[in-house]
Amino acid sequence: MRGKPLAAIVSAGLSKFGRRDGFSGRELFAEAALEAFERCPNLDPKKDIGALIIGNMSESFEHQCHSAPIMSDWAGLLPKPAVRVEVACASSGAAIRYGIFAILSGLYDTVMVGGFEKMTHRTTFEATEYLAMASDFPLEQWNGATFPGLFALMATAHMHEYGTTEEQMALVAVKNHHNGALNPKAHLQREVTVEQVLGSRVIAKPLKLFDCSLISDGASCAILTRPEIARKYTDTPVYIIGSGHGTDAIGLYERDSLTSLESIRRAAKEAYEMAALGPEDIDVAEVHDCFTIAEIIAYEDLGFCKPGEGGKFIESGAPTLDGDLPVNTSGGLKAKGHPVGATGVAQLYEIYLQLTGQADRRQVDGCEVGLTQNLGGSGATCIVHIYRRG
Amino acid sequence: MRGKPLAAIVSAGLSKFGRRDGFSGRELFAEAALEAFERCPNLDPKKDIGALIIGNMSESFEHQCHSAPIMSDWAGLLPKPAVRVEVACASSGAAIRYGIFAILSGLYDTVMVGGFEKMTHRTTFEATEYLAMASDFPLEQWNGATFPGLFALMATAHMHEYGTTEEQMALVAVKNHHNGALNPKAHLQREVTVEQVLGSRVIAKPLKLFDCSLISDGASCAILTRPEIARKYTDTPVYIIGSGHGTDAIGLYERDSLTSLESIRRAAKEAYEMAALGPEDIDVAEVHDCFTIAEIIAYEDLGFCKPGEGGKFIESGAPTLDGDLPVNTSGGLKAKGHPVGATGVAQLYEIYLQLTGQADRRQVDGCEVGLTQNLGGSGATCIVHIYRRG
Repeated sequence: MRGKPLAAIVSAGLSKFGRRDGFSGRELFAEAALEAFERCPNLDPKKDIGALIIGNMSESFEHQCHSAPIMSDWAGLLPKPAVRVEVACASSGAAIRYGIFAILSGLYDTVMVGGFEKMTHRTTFEATEYLAMASDFPLEQWNGATFPGLFALMATAHMHEYGTTEEQMALVAVKNHHNGALNPKAHLQREVTVEQVLGSRVIAKPLKLFDCSLISDGASCAILTRPEIARKYTDTPVYIIGSGHGTDAIGLYERDSLTSLESIRRAAKEAYEMAALGPEDIDVAEVHDCFTIAEIIAYEDLGFCKPGEGGKFIESGAPTLDGDLPVNTSGGLKAKGHPVGATGVAQLYEIYLQLTGQADRRQVDGCEVGLTQNLGGSGATCIVHIYRRG
Repeated sequence: MRGKPLAAIVSAGLSKFGRRDGFSGRELFAEAALEAFERCPNLDPKKDIGALIIGNMSESFEHQCHSAPIMSDWAGLLPKPAVRVEVACASSGAAIRYGIFAILSGLYDTVMVGGFEKMTHRTTFEATEYLAMASDFPLEQWNGATFPGLFALMATAHMHEYGTTEEQMALVAVKNHHNGALNPKAHLQREVTVEQVLGSRVIAKPLKLFDCSLISDGASCAILTRPEIARKYTDTPVYIIGSGHGTDAIGLYERDSLTSLESIRRAAKEAYEMAALGPEDIDVAEVHDCFTIAEIIAYEDLGFCKPGEGGKFIESGAPTLDGDLPVNTSGGLKAKGHPVGATGVAQLYEIYLQLTGQADRRQVDGCEVGLTQNLGGSGATCIVHIYRRG
């Protein structure tokens, strides 16, 4: 099925990201669902949507597993069947992929995919512990590893192997904060300078506070249909033309490289081949900048630049809003925020806005093809999707 | 696709269920995977299996989410992509369904589905709390509801509405312990009498200790392929010919009935219609007897008997090993054990053994068509599959 649409996006919704005191995960999901429904008046949700596939990382934040039926209920979809998929921070990226499978199976014409996470009511200690569950228990968590620590190891290795600098990493934060300041749904809507990033307190050397993404509340959703029926619902469908899923060993200690993520390279290869496109064809991308170093590694493993040249790529300005390949126009996980289970579909939401010309002050002119890259844990999972304007 | 095979089971594996001190979830899954591989020498797992879809309920037992890549690793499948699906105790039932979707999508020829849960290293208090997360947090958990309590409400309503008796519920336990005593992989391999069940200590009135399923460790898996290629791998494939998924409100307080589960009826209807069969065609079934009352309700909502007649159905002897429609020949959750995430695929495993004549002392002669029914939580989720001997 090279180059052929796998599914069409006919609508999407996103809650405001941030510290949403007093709102639970189910309420945030209802907020996202409502936007998607209002955006698509030709669709009768309860009649037309066949199933819900929802990404959520952790039962611990809200002491709630079995959240899929709750989300179906709060989106007004009951008794439509619902399932949760989980691969850490790539949970809703996987929801997109399994939503596509559900449509390609022929059993459903239309499904809703989404994700949510309610995090900010917990202490930083609790959130750090819950997130750490996405790393290996016996050999990483047990020895005190946390995610800032694991990504700091990658950053150190990248600096050692390729000469990547803290200033280059800071430029990623500066770019994403600039974009986030243009996004009314972003958690942090303010610019930062290289000096502010470099001067922020050290979290796990060489990563400082402004190298880290945010603990946020939020939810996201999208409505996918068979491409053949998309125009029943919208004049501006976006087609998903490539889907890739890469899996690697969970522990850093099991991997051949600390400076490149095999899961990204595999997911990208699968998605590019399916789409019959290459990195040179991408006009706009949302990548998983859970830490600034992760965005630099993503540039390289997605083929936006050569291995080791991610630092130079951000220095060149190419991934800025006015550059050749704008990356994280939404503000990314860094500024838009990172309610982990919501992130994969939130990336899709931004690309959907861009390819339908609804990205307002962040709009990339004339973009036709977009890409999302959603990472789970320290890279044991990666999901890549490629999109084309309808 | 009425009556046509959706997928073929070419192999399956099950770890010993029980208190598996010193074994982690990943080791139990490797044990199950090894049996499936040994049973199917024509299959090269690393080459032929395209993806792993794994059911697991709770990150809390082993302080580990993002378990899918770990299971892919421990089954020797890396770098094949892996995803976890979660709908409480129906997690691996859902893994079967999404495994079928993955095959029907045309993207994979062969996938592994499975499930696992490691529970017995936790205290009963901890296990009860983690399991309770599958009920509604704000209105059930918060008010002290636990699963024995929720099913006790259903049992009380059933007794009130239909005159169902504690003796009838006890007969379900007696039957399943009888079958479990014939199953070398069962957690409890010993018979119980009606008197023992009635005399066991009250957990949540009217449910007593022997009305409750077990907290167990265990793992399960199966290898599914496109039906067209099944005979490359085995001379005795089993075809999955129906799949149903029902979802209902999570809280008992939101439902119209306490004596019937809408999710079972919807899942059964979808599966029967897909298989072009009815309850009268089923020769052997594994149903979700998390509590004895749940098996009685399952008889009714699956159409094995009329509403309200589940008590009489077990009294008639119909679901015993020598009856007209043997149910839970494995011993069920009650005696085989209930490592929650493993249960859905463990039910498939028993039906696979039965339909291929490998069930040894539990063999049901001449069975051609089997059914599995896997419940999540107090019934917000139900997954039903129907199988036919190849």
